[in-house]
Formats: sequence, C-alpha cells, structure tokens
Amino acid sequence: MSEFIYGIDIGGTTIKIGLFSKLGTLINKWEINTNTTNFGKNILNDIATFIKSNEVPLEKVIGYGFGVPGPVIDTTVLNCVNLGWNQVDIKKELSTVLQNENIFVANDANAAALGETKNGASKGFKDSVMITLGTGVGSGVIIDNKIITGSNGAAGELGHIKLIHDNGLPCGCGNNGCLETVASATGLKNITCHLLNDSKKISTLKCSKELNAKMIFDAANNMDELAITAIDRFTYYIATAIQIITVSVNPEIVVIGGGVSKAGEPLLNKIINHFKNIGFSSVKDTKIVLAKLGNDAGIYGAAGMVKV
Amino acid sequence: MSEFIYGIDIGGTTIKIGLFSKLGTLINKWEINTNTTNFGKNILNDIATFIKSNEVPLEKVIGYGFGVPGPVIDTTVLNCVNLGWNQVDIKKELSTVLQNENIFVANDANAAALGETKNGASKGFKDSVMITLGTGVGSGVIIDNKIITGSNGAAGELGHIKLIHDNGLPCGCGNNGCLETVASATGLKNITCHLLNDSKKISTLKCSKELNAKMIFDAANNMDELAITAIDRFTYYIATAIQIITVSVNPEIVVIGGGVSKAGEPLLNKIINHFKNIGFSSVKDTKIVLAKLGNDAGIYGAAGMVKV
Repeated sequence: MSEFIYGIDIGGTTIKIGLFSKLGTLINKWEINTNTTNFGKNILNDIATFIKSNEVPLEKVIGYGFGVPGPVIDTTVLNCVNLGWNQVDIKKELSTVLQNENIFVANDANAAALGETKNGASKGFKDSVMITLGTGVGSGVIIDNKIITGSNGAAGELGHIKLIHDNGLPCGCGNNGCLETVASATGLKNITCHLLNDSKKISTLKCSKELNAKMIFDAANNMDELAITAIDRFTYYIATAIQIITVSVNPEIVVIGGGVSKAGEPLLNKIINHFKNIGFSSVKDTKIVLAKLGNDAGIYGAAGMVKV
Repeated sequence: MSEFIYGIDIGGTTIKIGLFSKLGTLINKWEINTNTTNFGKNILNDIATFIKSNEVPLEKVIGYGFGVPGPVIDTTVLNCVNLGWNQVDIKKELSTVLQNENIFVANDANAAALGETKNGASKGFKDSVMITLGTGVGSGVIIDNKIITGSNGAAGELGHIKLIHDNGLPCGCGNNGCLETVASATGLKNITCHLLNDSKKISTLKCSKELNAKMIFDAANNMDELAITAIDRFTYYIATAIQIITVSVNPEIVVIGGGVSKAGEPLLNKIINHFKNIGFSSVKDTKIVLAKLGNDAGIYGAAGMVKV
C-alpha cells in the first residue's frame, strides 16, 4: 500500500526533500546541493538518484510535489534563471524513472503559501495570501485551499505590482517601480540609500555595498531616526500590497514570510498599523500574521499538492 | 419538468428581470422600477409579485440568480446604500414565496463579470476580470468560471485599490486616492479639473458641475490638448489596475465595461498601449477587450450562477 509523499523544494543553492505521511505529517527531511552547472541538467537526476537510494521503496510513494523558483503551468516550469533551466516538464522527465504519474509542480512562493495553509500560519483558512519578503518579493494566492496559478503561471507575482509611478527604480523583471524594488530586503536598502542621499539627517548608516536589512533594523532599534523613517516607508509599501490584495481577492488571512520577516512582531505591527490606515473599510480586520514554517514551507506545500 | 431560470439585476433605479432557458439563452426580459422608499422593504415583494404574475408557472423554474449593488456573502447582502438595505438574506426572504431553494446572489459587478463569461466578451475563457467604468469603478474576478467573492464579499473591489499615495482625492468609501477617484467617469472629470486648475494650457473645457466624461472625450476628439492629456492619464490609471490584476490572479482576459467604455476602440487602444509599457513581461499579451452585453451582463451573470 502506498503511504508516503515526497515534497521537494528546488532552490538555486540547495534542494530540500521532505518525506511525508499520507496525512501530511513530516517524517524526515534532507538537503542536497543544487548542481546548476551545464544548465542544471543534472538536478532532476540527482533528485531521482537520492529518492531511489532512500529506504522507502518507490511503490510505497503516493506521489511527488515540486516547488521551483520560476513560473509554472501544469507540471511545466517555463523558465528558471536560478537553475539554468528553460522549459522543463518535470512530470515528463521523472514519471518513468520514479514509476509514478502522480507528480505536481508549483512555483516555490506558491508552494510556500500552500505549505503555510497545510500546516502553518494560515492553517484552517481556505483563502489566504502569503507574501515572502526576501532578496525579492514572492507571493502565493490560495483560494479554496488551492494555489491560483493564472493563465501564464504569473498569479501571485505581487512583487511586480507597479507601485512607484515616478522615478521608480529598475526591477530585475525589466520594468521599474515594482513593489520588489521597495518592499524586499533590497528594497529596504534602496529606501535607506535614497534617504541618506536625499536628507540632511544624521545617521549611523552609510549607503555602501555592505549595508543590509539587518543593519537597518538594528539601527532603528537604536533609535536611528533615518533608519526608523526607512522602515516606516518600507512597511507602508508592504501594507499597500496587502491593501491591494484584500480588495482583489479578499483573503481571510495574509501571511508574511521570508528572511525579512525574522524582524518579527515589531515589523508586523508596523505593517498592520499602516494597513489599518489605508485598508478598505470592510477588510480592515483581515488577519495579518507571521509565517510559521520558515524554510520548510516549500516542502509542506509541495507535498500538499499531491492527490492522495 | 423545470426548464427556466430567472436572472435578476437589482439596481438603484430599475430592476432588470431576465427569463432564460436551461441552457442560458435569454428568452425575454423586463424592467420594473426599484421602490427604495421605506428602506427598500418592497423590493423583493415587487419582484416576487412580478414573477408570480408571469406566464411561467413557479414549478417550471429551476432557480433564481440575483445581482445586487453591495457586498454579498452566500445569499446575504451585507448592506446596500442604493436600495436602502442593511443586511438582507435574499434566499431566506424569497424561498417560501417562490417555492424554490435554488437561489443565488452576487454583487452586481461580479454578476456582470460572470455574464460576460457566460455569453459575452470573455466567453470561452475560464479566468477573467471585468472592470466596469461608470460613475464609480466596479469589478469582478472570475476564476475557473466561478465568481471569487472573498471572505467579506470584497473580492473584485478593484475600484478601491489605493493608487494615489500623495494628495489623493477623497473616495466614497472613506479612504482617499482610490482607483475610483481617477479611473471612473467622475475620475476623468477630477483629472480634467485638476489639469484646468493647475496648468496654463488653453482648453475649450471648464471645470463646472456640468462637465462630464462625454464632453472630455468630445474635446479630445477635437484635438483639445488638455482633454487629450486628461484621457492619457485616465487610461494610464486603468492600465495600472490591469497591471495589478494581471500579477495578482493573472487572468486570460480583461473585459472593460460600463458607461465610459462606450468611448470604444480609441479608449481601449490607449489602455492597451499603456499596459504594454507597464505590464509584467509574461503577461503583456493578456487580452484586453470591450464588454459585449451592455446592461444585460447583470441578468446573464445572475442566471449563470443558478445550478441546473
């Protein structure tokens, strides 16, 4: 009898592999390195080799879920700069070697959002949005316990909402003024550098290559006024993204995750305060919470897609 | 055998009643006045009286769909200023008198979006968004052929996206800087008045109570530079809303409806041009089209909700 599910989160540096029970309980997890050489051609082989060498025989596996850092339609990754991939149909590549047709694929931010719904901060809520604040801004929209992928796999690309209409900074996507340019770790640095260049305020911070989000949060904790202003703007932009998503799909709960969310409750409270000021009347009470699963959200969500 | 469906669109001035076949073909339609006196207490009675006096016997009716100008959860309208209603459960109020439990209710903009999917501009597309540009801005999000209502009935309230962050105009919702303040008929007038007050450009237009969207479009057609600038900004804001929705839920098609959309292809082309400039790369080719059903979209969508 099949009784196990694999949830696999393929990142640019490591691949996280989780073994789950049929009911979605995490039994064990591993990490292997992502081999991005040769256009990432070995990545799927490496995963298959690991799984076949694992103690669980293939016939005991119900199915496999994958999270990948790129847009996905059905089981096909459209492109994945971090992995060196162009179009890759993961199901087609792996179904024979894993002797399993029950293979599901999602964008990693979408998988993380589903993971938090399956076992984390949004557990028990059927409609949720997760915003992942890292180097960039990822997000996932869950409606009726399912990931919304959209017609081009671009649903939940909230990081690319055009938010700044005059003199917006260039974004990695080719546009400028995207949410990501002001609401990610990089965005916080951008705001801080802008303030440092633009204002006469004395600050302990300097706009340099080394400046990072943690340094800015630390400075704010030490009452550095410029850092406080920077974080105020930064959290306003995040609140604006939440304002937009609450009048677009009106989720029950918004989950804030990613490296930046390690700043914790003080960050969250600033976001909530801004949101209370700008939120549409009937959605002002939308729950806004911190993610719970950290780096495991992806494997939970990947496994959560598998039909049992 | 039951073979008919009623689709009913309750507006602040008139109630549109459509009789549809089981397959969704419109057989006949009528309009009755909306009696908003006494907090709209007679509205549902008036509808029931009309239907009972109609030639189709109640037992031949499969079910009823309603569109209403307010937020809806399940079959309950939460509030409806235009009708004088507070909370009204339409199913509870009408199921006995109509001898039918198959009653469905949606916000009117959501119903219109579904109507265009059932028989209009977005027919054949399972994921679509309709933006209705009238006195205000309404919208509806359809995913997998179903209306997304959200947890407070506020999904598809794109008119209340906060778009202007500095010196935004007050919106009817109590906030300021909402999309509706710059992307509705009123919004176009707002932009034009702002330009008239602010610039030295010579224009045939004057900012007065009488100024309306049609006058501004006419002036632009007569090469009035200020009117052309106003419409350029106006269409940019609409394109921005489309930019946002395409990275949020990534529909296959966006439908532009409402009174303002009567400006037709020239308006549409300006919106598309702006969208091509600011759209996220993978969704730049999202179809943007004009609505087809006009005032009938609501009854089509209302009927389209009924389970057959």
